[in-house]
Amino acid sequence: LEKRTTGWSLAEIAKILGGELFGPADLLITGPGNADSDDPHALVFAESEGYLKKLAGLRIGAVLTKPEFEGVETPSIRVPKPRESYALFLELCRRELPLEAGVHERAVVSAEASVDPDAMVGAFAVVERGATVEKGARIYPFAYVGEDCKVGEDAVIYPHAVLYRDVQVGARSVIHAGAVLGSDGFGYTWNGSRHVKIPQVGSTIIASDVEIGACTTIDRAMIGETRIGDGTKIDNQVQVGHNSHIGRHTVIASLAGISGSTIIGDRCTLAGQTATVDHIKIGDDVILTGRAAASKDLLTPGAYRGAPATPYAEELRLEAAYRRLPDLLKKVRDLERRLKELENDRPT
Amino acid sequence: LEKRTTGWSLAEIAKILGGELFGPADLLITGPGNADSDDPHALVFAESEGYLKKLAGLRIGAVLTKPEFEGVETPSIRVPKPRESYALFLELCRRELPLEAGVHERAVVSAEASVDPDAMVGAFAVVERGATVEKGARIYPFAYVGEDCKVGEDAVIYPHAVLYRDVQVGARSVIHAGAVLGSDGFGYTWNGSRHVKIPQVGSTIIASDVEIGACTTIDRAMIGETRIGDGTKIDNQVQVGHNSHIGRHTVIASLAGISGSTIIGDRCTLAGQTATVDHIKIGDDVILTGRAAASKDLLTPGAYRGAPATPYAEELRLEAAYRRLPDLLKKVRDLERRLKELENDRPT
Amino acid sequence: LEKRTTGWSLAEIAKILGGELFGPADLLITGPGNADSDDPHALVFAESEGYLKKLAGLRIGAVLTKPEFEGVETPSIRVPKPRESYALFLELCRRELPLEAGVHERAVVSAEASVDPDAMVGAFAVVERGATVEKGARIYPFAYVGEDCKVGEDAVIYPHAVLYRDVQVGARSVIHAGAVLGSDGFGYTWNGSRHVKIPQVGSTIIASDVEIGACTTIDRAMIGETRIGDGTKIDNQVQVGHNSHIGRHTVIASLAGISGSTIIGDRCTLAGQTATVDHIKIGDDVILTGRAAASKDLLTPGAYRGAPATPYAEELRLEAAYRRLPDLLKKVRDLERRLKELENDRPT
Repeated sequence: LEKRTTGWSLAEIAKILGGELFGPADLLITGPGNADSDDPHALVFAESEGYLKKLAGLRIGAVLTKPEFEGVETPSIRVPKPRESYALFLELCRRELPLEAGVHERAVVSAEASVDPDAMVGAFAVVERGATVEKGARIYPFAYVGEDCKVGEDAVIYPHAVLYRDVQVGARSVIHAGAVLGSDGFGYTWNGSRHVKIPQVGSTIIASDVEIGACTTIDRAMIGETRIGDGTKIDNQVQVGHNSHIGRHTVIASLAGISGSTIIGDRCTLAGQTATVDHIKIGDDVILTGRAAASKDLLTPGAYRGAPATPYAEELRLEAAYRRLPDLLKKVRDLERRLKELENDRPT
Repeated sequence: LEKRTTGWSLAEIAKILGGELFGPADLLITGPGNADSDDPHALVFAESEGYLKKLAGLRIGAVLTKPEFEGVETPSIRVPKPRESYALFLELCRRELPLEAGVHERAVVSAEASVDPDAMVGAFAVVERGATVEKGARIYPFAYVGEDCKVGEDAVIYPHAVLYRDVQVGARSVIHAGAVLGSDGFGYTWNGSRHVKIPQVGSTIIASDVEIGACTTIDRAMIGETRIGDGTKIDNQVQVGHNSHIGRHTVIASLAGISGSTIIGDRCTLAGQTATVDHIKIGDDVILTGRAAASKDLLTPGAYRGAPATPYAEELRLEAAYRRLPDLLKKVRDLERRLKELENDRPT
Repeated sequence: LEKRTTGWSLAEIAKILGGELFGPADLLITGPGNADSDDPHALVFAESEGYLKKLAGLRIGAVLTKPEFEGVETPSIRVPKPRESYALFLELCRRELPLEAGVHERAVVSAEASVDPDAMVGAFAVVERGATVEKGARIYPFAYVGEDCKVGEDAVIYPHAVLYRDVQVGARSVIHAGAVLGSDGFGYTWNGSRHVKIPQVGSTIIASDVEIGACTTIDRAMIGETRIGDGTKIDNQVQVGHNSHIGRHTVIASLAGISGSTIIGDRCTLAGQTATVDHIKIGDDVILTGRAAASKDLLTPGAYRGAPATPYAEELRLEAAYRRLPDLLKKVRDLERRLKELENDRPT
């Protein structure tokens, strides 16, 4: 993939994406666009004929779409999966935040840390003793890589992310700005007059190909590990409590709160502002819809809704019934009145 | 406005606020106070006669209040809008966090960045290549102003705020500590075995006179812009998803979650812990009360409550009915019993 | 307490914890373990006989448990309160993040600040003019200790914590990474066309033995103080609004939102994602269960549940009734049908 800021010809893009070209081969494409665009050098993607029609009147350069759509007048590249191919095109356009090779003279790297010569460490970054930064890893300004932490190959630690200690970040994982990994789990014991802290001496393991959003916090385990599995993606401002284990390829959206010692399976989806109580188990392929709150083990795959989280269809029935409550109250008042009449009419 | 730490005479303050003075002209006022105060040099404000009475027994210096209130024995300044005038007095007392003129020797500013001579850049701040910092802007320690960002005139970037890249902050806007602007939007496509990241190549535009709270995160757009309009105020720990557009003079309180591609109008109020699902439109002058969750377009001005967000009065009716549910269950059991009796009595 | 990375003999640990030893005195213990462990040098604790049985088959070194439990084959130390004693053992094992004595040459400390010779200030920390850092305090890299702040004896400010100005942190209190103390309270007044900021000129007081979680934000008061009382523990990503006063030994879990001017008593527990509206008072010994939302004064000790927060048993009744709603609807339809029949049968 050759990234350019000067753009590509439409033919070059068709070749890179393995698509079929309809339109001028030499049309200059400089970047992406959408239905708001008015840029004759923008490439847009359309997965539906409806969206294609919206694009018809626009001054965009070209559209990436499916082979079977007909009557497209805009220059186009045809591929079987426009969304996936478009992600590849966006990757061409994407520029990584700047960072110079090697260790910046204004970084502080412990003499007892190990930084690969092909890793990058920016200004005002700190790498503590015992830490390892592997080949191709990018440590941005203000990142704190604590004692005995490990940052894997090609992993990215964005500005202001904090790795307390004993935190492992796997290959190609990305930790966004302001995220805090390995802070103390929230554990105390009440001694009758005050809360006594239970020292948190475990670690935090982020596997490979994980993405952790900005200002997300993942506590280290009291004992043992807090774990985030391969390929899992966590949005901004999510809280993961100590000793929780989250599986692989799971997605957790913003402002979700995962309590301590929660086990979450593979390929789950937790929508925004969801929650789980501590010490429960969520199985594989479970979906919690927006703001659902899991209050007990949810082992059966499928969608759950509401608080406490309830199988989707059942919760929808409850919510529909809730909305009919004022009607129901009226109906019962009416029944009472009519029953009273019957009672009064009753032969004595 | 002349700020002083030594205080002002009551007459000076009356003059600055354009109010009428009742009491000793030379009374020394050194700062603000409230109903907890016991400071003979404090100025307090009172918008109601009830609050005035609470102040009667206190050793405060003076009160800022309305012309029409009678029987006030505390020295006073009378103005038509005490709250607004008091804000002006507080501005007199307020001290900005310290920052020296020019660029601190321990800042790292790219040779390809443009910093106005009248801007201030503190120790351990980073300004990347292509960034512009305009006249009067204040960049505090540990702020990261990324590639091609622009910080407008008199804008303030507090310690630890992060601007990834292509982030614009308008004139006089204030970005609080730990806020993250321009982090990647949360976008993936599932390829059957893993989540493939959709690169986020858009930008983030913060207009003028905006305030962004501590640890708030505003993602950059996938394509195009995430936008926050003029005069909008966002509290701490709010999440704004990619490609959302928030209008002007809108207020969003703490822990609210705005999903991606949400359009929010002007002069809206979103209370704490509210949420919106993605791809919806909230019209102008809409209020979401605490924890309301907008699940579809809300185009009619007015207050909405509950999850899903429902016109206020309608939701109140539902909630009232909910609280009567145990009664209703009893009533229906009673109806059943009585109906059974009637049925048994029925002549055969 | 002598911390060691080489471990202790079982007899040494028994002596430190004041427990009775059953098993080999010279057994090497190097750290803690749990029911997942397979480490012959791990010490585990068990408060119940059930958990003891789980441990029976494991290759752990020893177990810390109660004197009265019988039939324990694993080497053991017996103490009356295993959990509390185990916390002491964990403290033996815990290592503080590294920090060198004195002020690091890459820190920026104002000539007008006062730092005790026995305090530690790390690389890339900023201590502004008028600030005081007392004996034994630890200021980690990237911490910002603003103007006129005070960090008490043995207090800890972790990397990236921000103290704006006039923030006091009491003795032994711990401020975790990314926490922001003393940011502006969210106060505006609408002047008919825009929100006018009410300057926030008060302070933030964190008393002694407090712990503040990662990315938690505590605003400074408009006037007067925002206060967190002795021994109170606040989890990650909690928001505390301006002028709120939180009592002593209170616990607040993650993602809770405390509005402005809220008074919360001593020994309260606010679970995750809870909320309080502004200007209310929560008495001593109140519990808000997960996601409860206090909408008015709650002065009676005890547990509250739901939104609005309702005495626990009452809310449970409401929730049980809610789940019976679809049944109730059916029942009422049935009553209607039967009543109709009776009405039709009625002698005319």
